[in-house]
Amino acid sequence: MVEIAVMGYGVVGSGVVEVLTNHVENIAKRAKEQINIKYILDLREFPGSPFADKFTNSFDKILNDPEIKIVVEVMGGLKPAFEYVKRCLEAGKSVVTSNKELVAAKGAELLKIAQKNNLNFLFEASVGGGIPIIRPISQCLAANDVVEIAGILNGTTNFILTKMIREQMTFDDTLALAQKLGYAERNPAADVEGYDACRKKCILASLAYGKHVYPEQVHTEGITGITLADVEYAAAWGGVVKLIGQVKMMGDGKLQIIVCPMFIPRDSKLANVDDVFKGIMVRGDSTGDVVFYGKGAGKLPTASAVVADVIDCVKHFKARKYLYWEDGSKDYVEDYLLNDVAMFVRAETDNEDIAFKNINKIFGGVTRLSRKRAAGGEIAFVTDIMQEKAIAAKLAELETLGVCVKNTIRIGDL
Amino acid sequence: MVEIAVMGYGVVGSGVVEVLTNHVENIAKRAKEQINIKYILDLREFPGSPFADKFTNSFDKILNDPEIKIVVEVMGGLKPAFEYVKRCLEAGKSVVTSNKELVAAKGAELLKIAQKNNLNFLFEASVGGGIPIIRPISQCLAANDVVEIAGILNGTTNFILTKMIREQMTFDDTLALAQKLGYAERNPAADVEGYDACRKKCILASLAYGKHVYPEQVHTEGITGITLADVEYAAAWGGVVKLIGQVKMMGDGKLQIIVCPMFIPRDSKLANVDDVFKGIMVRGDSTGDVVFYGKGAGKLPTASAVVADVIDCVKHFKARKYLYWEDGSKDYVEDYLLNDVAMFVRAETDNEDIAFKNINKIFGGVTRLSRKRAAGGEIAFVTDIMQEKAIAAKLAELETLGVCVKNTIRIGDL
Repeated sequence: MVEIAVMGYGVVGSGVVEVLTNHVENIAKRAKEQINIKYILDLREFPGSPFADKFTNSFDKILNDPEIKIVVEVMGGLKPAFEYVKRCLEAGKSVVTSNKELVAAKGAELLKIAQKNNLNFLFEASVGGGIPIIRPISQCLAANDVVEIAGILNGTTNFILTKMIREQMTFDDTLALAQKLGYAERNPAADVEGYDACRKKCILASLAYGKHVYPEQVHTEGITGITLADVEYAAAWGGVVKLIGQVKMMGDGKLQIIVCPMFIPRDSKLANVDDVFKGIMVRGDSTGDVVFYGKGAGKLPTASAVVADVIDCVKHFKARKYLYWEDGSKDYVEDYLLNDVAMFVRAETDNEDIAFKNINKIFGGVTRLSRKRAAGGEIAFVTDIMQEKAIAAKLAELETLGVCVKNTIRIGDL
Repeated sequence: MVEIAVMGYGVVGSGVVEVLTNHVENIAKRAKEQINIKYILDLREFPGSPFADKFTNSFDKILNDPEIKIVVEVMGGLKPAFEYVKRCLEAGKSVVTSNKELVAAKGAELLKIAQKNNLNFLFEASVGGGIPIIRPISQCLAANDVVEIAGILNGTTNFILTKMIREQMTFDDTLALAQKLGYAERNPAADVEGYDACRKKCILASLAYGKHVYPEQVHTEGITGITLADVEYAAAWGGVVKLIGQVKMMGDGKLQIIVCPMFIPRDSKLANVDDVFKGIMVRGDSTGDVVFYGKGAGKLPTASAVVADVIDCVKHFKARKYLYWEDGSKDYVEDYLLNDVAMFVRAETDNEDIAFKNINKIFGGVTRLSRKRAAGGEIAFVTDIMQEKAIAAKLAELETLGVCVKNTIRIGDL
């Protein structure tokens, strides 16, 4: 019998308790041990709950109980999750978490403590929810060098973009719908500003390349600036707009990593990842492209990934799972302005002919795009591939010539 | 330092040696041990090979060398692979294989010996090649009951069907092209008759439900009977023809399992799995649908999956991986004729009006399909969902009424 504690009884926490309760036999068979929830940490009370006798509001009770071998952290956020997890690991308890903010900010530090104490710190649920991705990357692809990881990592923004693409709904209307359906939170910033995708991307990059990438190192743009005009131009170009997180290792040992909306071609394997689904493409030097795809999010999918990690902890009390990356460093991530990229540009002008003369002169030729419902004076084009910094300079020059840039979106090489 | 032997130096075997040689540092870091290839078993000689000193044609040399802790079997086929693997396990050596025929026919027996001797018998490469699927099913989905697994498991037939769908090439022409491109073997039966997909399906079903399903228990149909007419009718119906392997657990503890061409709707997540790509959809009761997608096949993808298993063996000399299923039984698989299914039927008749009067009378209404290039007297329709046995009886009755059935294809509920 292995005693565990669950910290946090929100959506994921209650799901973890539900999955552990409903699959008790199957789980015991897989783990070769019965798993018993001894405590559930929550400040709230749940009178009448079948688990009422397990609730506690005292973290110290969990920390100081030597019977507790595994702690599940599903509270979310950094405070007090970071302190709690750290102290549990220092006290000799393995920890399983679904908390992407925690892993993205403090992964290296916590993995170091876990390694020192010969414990496991597992977080399969933090990136894909129910889509297995951490384990496949760290194990199955162990014999590969990871060339690139690109993915649609946030279901809420993918739902919004899909509605904009398929039903010509505006961003604001779709966000309101997503909130109504429970896909987006009342404060949607973490999703629509790209922070959630950025945290997940940091975890994947840290894992794949063995060194921590911190969210503040990653240039991140959300989808709040995407309009129906952009969506139509993407279609005219032959693709769709998706919020993509992408990371590649460069020759000099620096990472190229970015989270932003991109035009991706219709035949890209990520172009068909729609609605609240996520898709992650891992390119290995031996294995080629492998795509992991699913809805992933929600109470039970996320909970089942957490429980799978708990089972893995039980099976590996003595043999620590290999899951580790070292501390990051300031110069590990390349300045995104030094990346080479092609750029979609939407702008306004009083005189299209003169504007395109100037555009062609400054950019040395571009691909012009058009759409049916274009407003008067609206123009759009795609540049050739060049350094972002150069594109920015050229656009600034254009602005002085009466071309008012309304939006720019990167062209994804996916 | 861990000494291993590689049995078979064909495509996969030479790939395994290549991956182990090219990623030696990364692999040692992951495995926490240097891995050294001591022997390569092959009847042929490879003079001038950088590994020339490792070749042997003596299996006994490997078997009787106590230094060899892990044996990689990549010979293929049952003879002598089964005997070799069995004897290695009995001699206390862990075994990694990519041999689907072996695992599908003898998995339960070999897993039992491995368990008894506290060894690992791993075969990640046997189903998806480089696409991780065995490990995600056995580990990540440990907290799920698997409701269903459906997949496009064979790249060669998927390439052929894709060419037929996209370029209106006939089956024979496409097969010839596939052979020319090296996608199909000179004797293509294992692919086009569905045997390869069937073996993979058996492995997935055995793993997911814990009990061996033998290939001869699975009703298997290949794609040799698929014509361009069928492909066009699939399009008219709103989908595509794919060779699908599907397994579901029924309420009475029996499996519903089949490998056959199916019409699947265009918005199915498997409908976009084209060319030599494979896609496997796993439906868990907690996690929902997760799709694993990639090319997977070929020397390096398959080899990298084998090497990942070798690394896992090294890391788990003491803690055996949980990977096990029990022996099968005769009545474990439901007779496919008792399955409920809707059926596409293509037929010929002298009189379409009379034919459809009879069809509607016998089937109680069907959905009629048409295509532009239909030959005179060609008719096609889709039945409602009913027991396959009943459909067969009704079609036999139709035959007596002057309707000559040319082909039938199941409608997939995917």
